[in-house]
Amino acid sequence: MKLPSQSKQLCDLFQIHYPIIQAGMVWCSGWRLAAAVSQAGGLGLIGAGSMSPDVLRYHIQQCKQTTSVPFGVNVPLHYAHTPAIIEVLLQERVKIVFTSAGNPSTWTPQLKAAGCTVVHVVSNTKFARKAQEAGVDAVVAEGFEAGGHNGREELTTFCLIPLVCEAVNIPVIAAGGICDGRSMMAAMVLGAAGVQIGTRFAASEESSAHPAFKASIVAAQEDSTQLTLKKLTPVRMLKNPFFDKVQVAEQAGASAEALRDLLGKGRSRKGIFEGNWEEGEWEVGQVAARVGQVLPASKIVHQIWAEWQDMQQLFT
Amino acid sequence: MKLPSQSKQLCDLFQIHYPIIQAGMVWCSGWRLAAAVSQAGGLGLIGAGSMSPDVLRYHIQQCKQTTSVPFGVNVPLHYAHTPAIIEVLLQERVKIVFTSAGNPSTWTPQLKAAGCTVVHVVSNTKFARKAQEAGVDAVVAEGFEAGGHNGREELTTFCLIPLVCEAVNIPVIAAGGICDGRSMMAAMVLGAAGVQIGTRFAASEESSAHPAFKASIVAAQEDSTQLTLKKLTPVRMLKNPFFDKVQVAEQAGASAEALRDLLGKGRSRKGIFEGNWEEGEWEVGQVAARVGQVLPASKIVHQIWAEWQDMQQLFT
Repeated sequence: MKLPSQSKQLCDLFQIHYPIIQAGMVWCSGWRLAAAVSQAGGLGLIGAGSMSPDVLRYHIQQCKQTTSVPFGVNVPLHYAHTPAIIEVLLQERVKIVFTSAGNPSTWTPQLKAAGCTVVHVVSNTKFARKAQEAGVDAVVAEGFEAGGHNGREELTTFCLIPLVCEAVNIPVIAAGGICDGRSMMAAMVLGAAGVQIGTRFAASEESSAHPAFKASIVAAQEDSTQLTLKKLTPVRMLKNPFFDKVQVAEQAGASAEALRDLLGKGRSRKGIFEGNWEEGEWEVGQVAARVGQVLPASKIVHQIWAEWQDMQQLFT
Repeated sequence: MKLPSQSKQLCDLFQIHYPIIQAGMVWCSGWRLAAAVSQAGGLGLIGAGSMSPDVLRYHIQQCKQTTSVPFGVNVPLHYAHTPAIIEVLLQERVKIVFTSAGNPSTWTPQLKAAGCTVVHVVSNTKFARKAQEAGVDAVVAEGFEAGGHNGREELTTFCLIPLVCEAVNIPVIAAGGICDGRSMMAAMVLGAAGVQIGTRFAASEESSAHPAFKASIVAAQEDSTQLTLKKLTPVRMLKNPFFDKVQVAEQAGASAEALRDLLGKGRSRKGIFEGNWEEGEWEVGQVAARVGQVLPASKIVHQIWAEWQDMQQLFT
């Protein structure tokens, strides 16, 4: 089966073989995961969201030493240390930067001037248009089913992808609900040039997440995750004791301030990196119900690609 | 392009040309809409949810007089008058019955014994398996993006369809987020045999909804609907003044009882049939953002089918 033209364009943009991008996730995606995905022909991303500038520099350098193929870094733009993170990207000559959680116009011009390919993550068409105006090369459109932080409009992948594809004329990468060749092809049918996959790679061997976190993805059922903390920044997580506390507070009408106190600091580290089931924030996508095994990242890439090719039999 | 084998099976089951099913919606789908969709080669459904037994009998008789092709009736099973509704179906020899909002094992045996084809609407795999055990011929799997009443797990079409297809071995009809040939093909790629389309047909010429309701679908943007009333039965509706009142109450921690008082009776009639923007419940799917025109139902069916056929170009 031939790739759609927009998918070929996306592969050319990143110089990758398959339009499969591994999400740059906090506490999961260090250099080991990013290098493994890129080596396998997809695009690996280091997740800077859980790294200090020095730690990020170390991961970039390790990734460069491990592989000569392209990889990228995902940078949430809302941290106080973002300027220092951007400085590291420029010094280390990172070629591909995915930005999220902030205004794309703040950093895109500087990154583009330095020769970077820039992609911004959005959850609605308004932000997609803003990103295009800021000069990004592509957008990731992330649906309601995705793990971690999420948009306020609760637009699902099924509705969001066609809307964003109509709103912009740069390639659209679909995120949320994708874990295999079947869901990758469905995203392409909806108009996506490629896919960004988080939860399935969070449960890969090279993921730096705690083994208990990976096991929780494999064990997850269809009702295991929920979008919560909507009075702050909405986040999809597994329903653990911390989630239950948030639910009780929200159902009783807790204010944003009270919820911020309850959330405190370091919850995602506690959950994803330390495997603390009681107290942590376990950021996992709804598609965890479809992930049944912890595998090497390369095997995941190749399996998805083989499944995608098999899909052509459906209509012939 | 050839239909997937499970889609051919579904068309044979209903004796229809296209695997396009019009949702049996309250206050929208009387005999005019059902007959128009069936005449065009899809499957039209009369929505019994907003009808007394006598009114339903009238609509069935009108439908029979208008067309000789198959049509069906959608029956929510949780009403006090459900036995009388079923009695009408049997007396009028309705051949296709879609049931929802209730236990499929209560009525399926009797309907099957009378020679009916029975389909049950589900929102998760547990209910899908129960429906299969009850003996239904197919299930509708309805995602979080759908308008009106909705499942508690908030499973999106993108995650729900592959899960349900794996859980049962009867045909799965996808609902939620589908409005055109592109989304129909994506649903099939995810494993669906066919699609059930609500919002787009609610905005058809033959829909019995108030003109203001149809206009609100055409005008809807990506952030116009939200799933609410989760302490009662979750329902997706347009954000109107009534929705705002519910939001204020929920954010302040209102109890289920207080919300039931606020909801009162007859809200969907007020919204959908009477066009009361202030006080009504305007049950609309997220996909309204992708519906731009009120068209005759036959034109909608033929447009979707033509778009679906055009999709083959994507991978060739």
